[in-house]
Amino acid sequence: MNIQKVLVSGGAGYIGTHTCIELIAAGYGVICADNFCNSSPVAMERVERITGTAIPVHRMDFCNLDEVEALFREETIDAAIHFAGHKAVGESVQKPLKYYENNLLSLINLCKAMGAGKAKNIVFSSSATVYGLSDRLPLTEETPTSAYNPYGRTKLYIEEILKDLHAAEPDWNMSILRYFNPVGAHPSGLIGEDPADIPNNLMPYIAQVAVGRLKKLSIFGDDYDTPDGTGVRDFIHVVDLARGHVAALRKLEEEPGYMVHNLGTGKGCSVLELVHAFERVNGVPIPYEIVGRRAGDVAANYAATDKARRELGWEATHTIEDMVRDTWHWQSENPKGYAED
Amino acid sequence: MNIQKVLVSGGAGYIGTHTCIELIAAGYGVICADNFCNSSPVAMERVERITGTAIPVHRMDFCNLDEVEALFREETIDAAIHFAGHKAVGESVQKPLKYYENNLLSLINLCKAMGAGKAKNIVFSSSATVYGLSDRLPLTEETPTSAYNPYGRTKLYIEEILKDLHAAEPDWNMSILRYFNPVGAHPSGLIGEDPADIPNNLMPYIAQVAVGRLKKLSIFGDDYDTPDGTGVRDFIHVVDLARGHVAALRKLEEEPGYMVHNLGTGKGCSVLELVHAFERVNGVPIPYEIVGRRAGDVAANYAATDKARRELGWEATHTIEDMVRDTWHWQSENPKGYAED
Repeated sequence: MNIQKVLVSGGAGYIGTHTCIELIAAGYGVICADNFCNSSPVAMERVERITGTAIPVHRMDFCNLDEVEALFREETIDAAIHFAGHKAVGESVQKPLKYYENNLLSLINLCKAMGAGKAKNIVFSSSATVYGLSDRLPLTEETPTSAYNPYGRTKLYIEEILKDLHAAEPDWNMSILRYFNPVGAHPSGLIGEDPADIPNNLMPYIAQVAVGRLKKLSIFGDDYDTPDGTGVRDFIHVVDLARGHVAALRKLEEEPGYMVHNLGTGKGCSVLELVHAFERVNGVPIPYEIVGRRAGDVAANYAATDKARRELGWEATHTIEDMVRDTWHWQSENPKGYAED
Repeated sequence: MNIQKVLVSGGAGYIGTHTCIELIAAGYGVICADNFCNSSPVAMERVERITGTAIPVHRMDFCNLDEVEALFREETIDAAIHFAGHKAVGESVQKPLKYYENNLLSLINLCKAMGAGKAKNIVFSSSATVYGLSDRLPLTEETPTSAYNPYGRTKLYIEEILKDLHAAEPDWNMSILRYFNPVGAHPSGLIGEDPADIPNNLMPYIAQVAVGRLKKLSIFGDDYDTPDGTGVRDFIHVVDLARGHVAALRKLEEEPGYMVHNLGTGKGCSVLELVHAFERVNGVPIPYEIVGRRAGDVAANYAATDKARRELGWEATHTIEDMVRDTWHWQSENPKGYAED
């Protein structure tokens, strides 16, 4: 099977933009669709600048089936990478219906539109959150799945919906990618993570402290059973992650089916290690304070990477130093994210 | 809290009709909403005949938010009992998207419409299927949940969505009722189960064999570890089940919150016992053959009933003899279900 044109839903988002770039570098045609509810059209202009390629951008909502069907009438689409979805854990606890409706319905509508055609190839943006609170490390693709907040449940449910759909219609080809902790930014400094509100994740928080938008970092607990007491995570450079999607698409072309892969580095890095790496590499102090543990945080997690290496021929190559350097490059050149353009 | 008017979604269906009758008998006002995709308007005429009460019936689809919102503008609704949903396990395996879309979206839309008002009282029609393949009997409300087909997953997901919604907005009052195997019919013989196609469930299959619409019954396996080798289930008379809903509503009025209860008899009855009871009580032979086990069937299951008895003051009172007698009364008087009217 030969995939030429790839629909990237949520293509203007953090991981979406980086994936558009790697897809184009790998020779794929890209069609971006985004409702811009948590992203900026400026990001897509930057992607076009980086790639020197004009990208069709559709402003649309995947919750609206009419709009999804119109998109599929208008464009020739051989495969979809589905990033579109809400992603803030805390907000999902406060507004569960918003998350269930948006994340599930957008996936269902996309599958309905794709299922009506012949190109049933989808890469889904899942998350290591589906390993729940498992502490058997490393987390392999065989680790039992569970979820402990509505956001996590939407990821888990979508994995199960796709698996059921594949069982019913084996001509679907599906790649489920379970991300660990994506950080960093494109080395150009032109695109990066740009949270709408106060960041929920560590790295953008560090970056906003570094650039002066936030006063200091709160570190949630230093009494975990880890080398320095702070939580250990598997941070992965977003460019590596983006390339993992290209590898997944290639795999679907060569060997169709239903498959699940972790995208992580396999190496744990503590919160404090990341903070100190940021300070050391970028020469910027990050004031922080230790506060209480946060509900639902595990002491440590990191990926088993063998399956992705073996089956996708992919592995992460960027170091923690690359991650903090590229994050700072992006944030220091764009202190307000995309807002100033 | 005082509940007067109750919306019954899927009110024209098998359990919906019987519940409308018990609600009216208990003094509640009933509003029925149904898309009639797997039910008949005749059923509601029969309910009106039995109760001597005019019931507003809205032909509408809960997957359409506009229609749901219009319903809530038009009617004063104090609580909803949500039956609407697809329910055929086998079809859910063949058409998983249809099930996920219909069952999840209809629940989400109902909750959105209810959440916009003040009456956040819902009784949800769940199923013992959420106990998965557990063989620790009896099944209590604390038995770990899981699901093994798309239909079961929609029930499980909805339970989890409601639980998350209650955690976010504690002014919701929610009663989750996990049904065992509803059978039987109203003693009037005017309403009963009327499957659109070949029945998926045992009792309507028996009834259609009895009435000559089907040649013989297939019994899936007689080599289970049960007294006679056939599967053991907790059959519950639909009138008992319907009264369980009234008890659940009363409970929400007296003691609001989030609660889960089994609706079963607590007594296991084997497939062969049910067949022989049908023959004995009704004097009708049921030819059958033993065929291979069916994937996903457990040897035995039955409910722990203590929690419902203690907290709802409800328990099943009808016997197996009542169930087979009332089923035959309905089927023999209505050999083609509602089709002849």
